[in-house]
Amino acid sequence: MAVIVPFEGPSTASIDQLVELVAADMERVNATILSRTGSDVTMIPEVANHLISSGGKRLRPMLTLAMANLTGYTGDGHIKLAAAVEFMHTATLLHDDVVDESEMRRGKKSARMLWGNEASVLVGDFLLGQAFRMMVEVGSLRALDILSSASATIAEGEVMQLAAAKNTATTEDEYLAVIRGKTAELFAAACEVGPAIANRPKPEQSACRSFGMNIGIAFQLIDDVLDYGGKAAKLGKNVGDDFREGKITLPVVLAFRRGNDAEREFWIKSLERGEISDADLDQAIKLMTKHRALDDTIQRAHHYGAMAVDALALFPSSPMKTALEQVVAFCLARSH
Amino acid sequence: MAVIVPFEGPSTASIDQLVELVAADMERVNATILSRTGSDVTMIPEVANHLISSGGKRLRPMLTLAMANLTGYTGDGHIKLAAAVEFMHTATLLHDDVVDESEMRRGKKSARMLWGNEASVLVGDFLLGQAFRMMVEVGSLRALDILSSASATIAEGEVMQLAAAKNTATTEDEYLAVIRGKTAELFAAACEVGPAIANRPKPEQSACRSFGMNIGIAFQLIDDVLDYGGKAAKLGKNVGDDFREGKITLPVVLAFRRGNDAEREFWIKSLERGEISDADLDQAIKLMTKHRALDDTIQRAHHYGAMAVDALALFPSSPMKTALEQVVAFCLARSH
Repeated sequence: MAVIVPFEGPSTASIDQLVELVAADMERVNATILSRTGSDVTMIPEVANHLISSGGKRLRPMLTLAMANLTGYTGDGHIKLAAAVEFMHTATLLHDDVVDESEMRRGKKSARMLWGNEASVLVGDFLLGQAFRMMVEVGSLRALDILSSASATIAEGEVMQLAAAKNTATTEDEYLAVIRGKTAELFAAACEVGPAIANRPKPEQSACRSFGMNIGIAFQLIDDVLDYGGKAAKLGKNVGDDFREGKITLPVVLAFRRGNDAEREFWIKSLERGEISDADLDQAIKLMTKHRALDDTIQRAHHYGAMAVDALALFPSSPMKTALEQVVAFCLARSH
Repeated sequence: MAVIVPFEGPSTASIDQLVELVAADMERVNATILSRTGSDVTMIPEVANHLISSGGKRLRPMLTLAMANLTGYTGDGHIKLAAAVEFMHTATLLHDDVVDESEMRRGKKSARMLWGNEASVLVGDFLLGQAFRMMVEVGSLRALDILSSASATIAEGEVMQLAAAKNTATTEDEYLAVIRGKTAELFAAACEVGPAIANRPKPEQSACRSFGMNIGIAFQLIDDVLDYGGKAAKLGKNVGDDFREGKITLPVVLAFRRGNDAEREFWIKSLERGEISDADLDQAIKLMTKHRALDDTIQRAHHYGAMAVDALALFPSSPMKTALEQVVAFCLARSH
């Protein structure tokens, strides 16, 4: 029987309050994003805007703005840093599409299907370069340190995932190391730069970083669950992409460990050897249900969500703090 | 008849004196490169070192060291900046191989042939991240500004090349804009950061930048010539790669403009439509010879080489200045 640990957060699971509180700043971030994708080389804004304007929630830059606000920052640097964070994210998506040979992204054809792998790689590099230029303009060496380290760590996490690809023997710990790098690190850095440019003491910087790291892990785990059903279609995702690409995610790790020999043979055949028939996705979901692999992945996500909320404990109550707690609940609620 | 403008530089065309003068610093740069490609993710040092240890001359980091020395820098920052420059270059090569679908690089199988496109994209991203981390550690916002701007400009130049690909109507000016971005900008930035961290006045920074920009253009033009013969084999290049990939380079631009209608049809058929038979490379070289396209590309390269040498005029005579002049002559002499 599935045991779901109740999430002790706010009753509202929504990003609405966050969106409202950062709306004015976010307008400036969006203007910055638009102007910084500009280039005389027309292919650059075309490719960049295809993805940037495709309806992502811009959660990461919103978190940068939120953390700067939460920690009392009064300058202008958070605008460019938030835009830089979104550019880093977009660059990662463009490169990921090439790595995964994805055909779709956010319910639209991926940039590589429309302009080719070449454009995806190079426009990603351009956005990364622009991101660093904006960080340099802000002039905070601490923020530069946080974001450049994140940049290397994200790539390291992706290579780790590549090396672990199709390996059903991956442990939960190894998988966590992958998603800490490839997903959670950017959330962590996006949050940490807020108190960093506000020159807040180390404990506040660490608290914001911890919030970002843990919400990032929770976010990715719920994403992993969505790939095997749930509200995936509504979110513009294709159910079964991870399965067909042989991606080892936590639901697989759990189902594999808890399965018998015949079941393990199924996972090895489908994920390692890529021998997949039409009925196999259903079989995969059946095995995950049998072993509560999806429910327990959601439960693990709640654990990290709780850590994220606790990380904010040292900040006094405020509308922004409540908004951030609601975002955690929102990330978790995406699964049902 | 070919008219070669004599190069009025030093009689020695060699990088030996430069190598000798920066040898001690270069040993530290190499140690830094080695330690910064390290990662628990073993695929990262494997892929990175495959390329890094494949016998490149490391001309760009040597120029960073040389310019720091020429402008009297006495600190340690030039070591990490030189390593960062080499990482930026290596990242570009890894991504270029994916963009060009190259099978060979420096006479060895390219990383993408051995580890796949995925690893080339991601290890390139990792090296770029590490490059920025090293720059941040040096702590010079001016050097960060120069190198992050270069990073965006290089990608922009590559996208420009992509957009101009297979377009035989490309003008010489348009082609120059491409190579200023994709090749010369990194030489320029590598040279400019030396006086920048030495806190030298703007004219010295501009002079070093100008030296780098012009030697970079000359270097690329000679590379373009080598792709149609000369000592290419000795340098580990495959003659005809550019032709087979439909790349528009200066020898093509000149031969196309100077050709008659039938000849233009040949260029359009082979480069734009990719209809290439075995004899076509010989035909391309024959047309280039007829119109002095290769000789004149070399002549253009000498023009930029002369500008590079003149850029150093404001520095007093020194063994380092002589070494840099010899490097210009070396770059030009590669063509015969």
